[in-house]
Amino acid sequence: MKTWETVAILGVGLIGGSIGLALRRRGLARKVVGIGRRTASLKVALERGAVTATTMELAQGVAEAELTVVCTPVGEIVNHVRQVALVCPSGALVTDVGSIKAAIVDPLDGTLPRGVRFVGSHPLAGSEKGGPGEASQTLFEGKTVVLTPTGQTSEADRRLLVEFWSNLGARVVIETAERHDQILAATSHLPHLLASALAAATPEEQLALTATGWADTTRIAAGDPELWQQILLGNREQVLAALARFESLLGQMRDVLSAGDASMLKAYLAQGKRHRDAAAN
Amino acid sequence: MKTWETVAILGVGLIGGSIGLALRRRGLARKVVGIGRRTASLKVALERGAVTATTMELAQGVAEAELTVVCTPVGEIVNHVRQVALVCPSGALVTDVGSIKAAIVDPLDGTLPRGVRFVGSHPLAGSEKGGPGEASQTLFEGKTVVLTPTGQTSEADRRLLVEFWSNLGARVVIETAERHDQILAATSHLPHLLASALAAATPEEQLALTATGWADTTRIAAGDPELWQQILLGNREQVLAALARFESLLGQMRDVLSAGDASMLKAYLAQGKRHRDAAAN
Repeated sequence: MKTWETVAILGVGLIGGSIGLALRRRGLARKVVGIGRRTASLKVALERGAVTATTMELAQGVAEAELTVVCTPVGEIVNHVRQVALVCPSGALVTDVGSIKAAIVDPLDGTLPRGVRFVGSHPLAGSEKGGPGEASQTLFEGKTVVLTPTGQTSEADRRLLVEFWSNLGARVVIETAERHDQILAATSHLPHLLASALAAATPEEQLALTATGWADTTRIAAGDPELWQQILLGNREQVLAALARFESLLGQMRDVLSAGDASMLKAYLAQGKRHRDAAAN
Repeated sequence: MKTWETVAILGVGLIGGSIGLALRRRGLARKVVGIGRRTASLKVALERGAVTATTMELAQGVAEAELTVVCTPVGEIVNHVRQVALVCPSGALVTDVGSIKAAIVDPLDGTLPRGVRFVGSHPLAGSEKGGPGEASQTLFEGKTVVLTPTGQTSEADRRLLVEFWSNLGARVVIETAERHDQILAATSHLPHLLASALAAATPEEQLALTATGWADTTRIAAGDPELWQQILLGNREQVLAALARFESLLGQMRDVLSAGDASMLKAYLAQGKRHRDAAAN
């Protein structure tokens, strides 16, 4: 099992903090440097043992990092990776945890200076709760991480990152950035848009008569609007395509309901149940 | 606290079984008779202590019941209440737990023979898991029960049922059947339709890359298609109205996303978050 000498984590929130905790508790990294903009978050990360050192200076934080994991909001990742590449050791490896990939991987692919290599990652392990206080060393256990190497990615780097995430307990799936975005549009970004629309469309005076069904269906609408605006706009074309497919199906269900066709309505509901039950396994 | 001599429960699934358990454990009923069509469910209800006696004969089951609670699927409730009214003690009280109310209350209101009175109830305490094996004496604690008395309902009966549900730990809200259906269309029936459409619209080969967001948003799609077909069709006009409002809002979000308007998109997401956070309290 590879042990890293120094890993830098830019952004010590839920994901970054959990990576640090898992690296430390599993003995996978000797030093984990947390880099952030808020002293409060850095302090929590240090106290919880997610990092061994903290700094607000990027150049200082990544100076010795063989691997830097960029865990900042998706709209800032490209710039942050470029900044890291200017000051990290020559030839170091950089990855991220952003929920969209083409908008991040495409502009970075093969364009970094000083032999620095970037490969995109996306751990499917988010939550509407953020912050290093929520971080957990087991966050990635049994979860899926999508890795999006390109034609420029060396076999060695691909292996390093598969091993990195596997060692945190995750199952690694390899996809192109485009295919990742197409799938996640349907399985993550569209659900967020729908949850948010449903919550927004529910009249305020009726909120007192909501129960577990509404609560489950709208749970992710509690996520950070700024972050999700970046994700949805960053994967706009794929989200719009997934939304169009959804609206078409919903329109069919509306027509069947409107026509009072019990057997067809039941058939649609049964298809939903089949997919739900299949995914739950 | 009123103690009932005999309460009959028609349909000993999750809700009926939980009513029985709560009545028994709280000492609210001396006898609880479970009536059902399947010996297996009746056996489980008896073994778990949810009922003190079981029968498959309706006339025998309700013969001494001061109160009968009809817990069968919504499409069957009207017929079941009429059958109960023919064989229960003269002047006995009957209620139900159906998720729709106007389609049940309107045809029954003031039409029952032998002085039998019906008042509609709806405990907002469902689950995608059914059966008496899942029943819990605490299912109604802190939950809301909507009671839908009409102009024909006596003050005494209204009080009896408010007390009945309050004694099980619930908060009772009084609404007309029409208003109940209008609200629940938005807070329960529409969420189910959307969860089901989202699950059905997610391509099967992409189900492996779903995470907690998709799982939460689609959870209720695992519900019984037959039951939900009855609920959606039984409250068709109100569900279509709520769906139209939702589609309109979703269309606005689509346009904003399509136009790349970050600040407006964030404003919609923020509205969703406000409603979600308000309901969670």
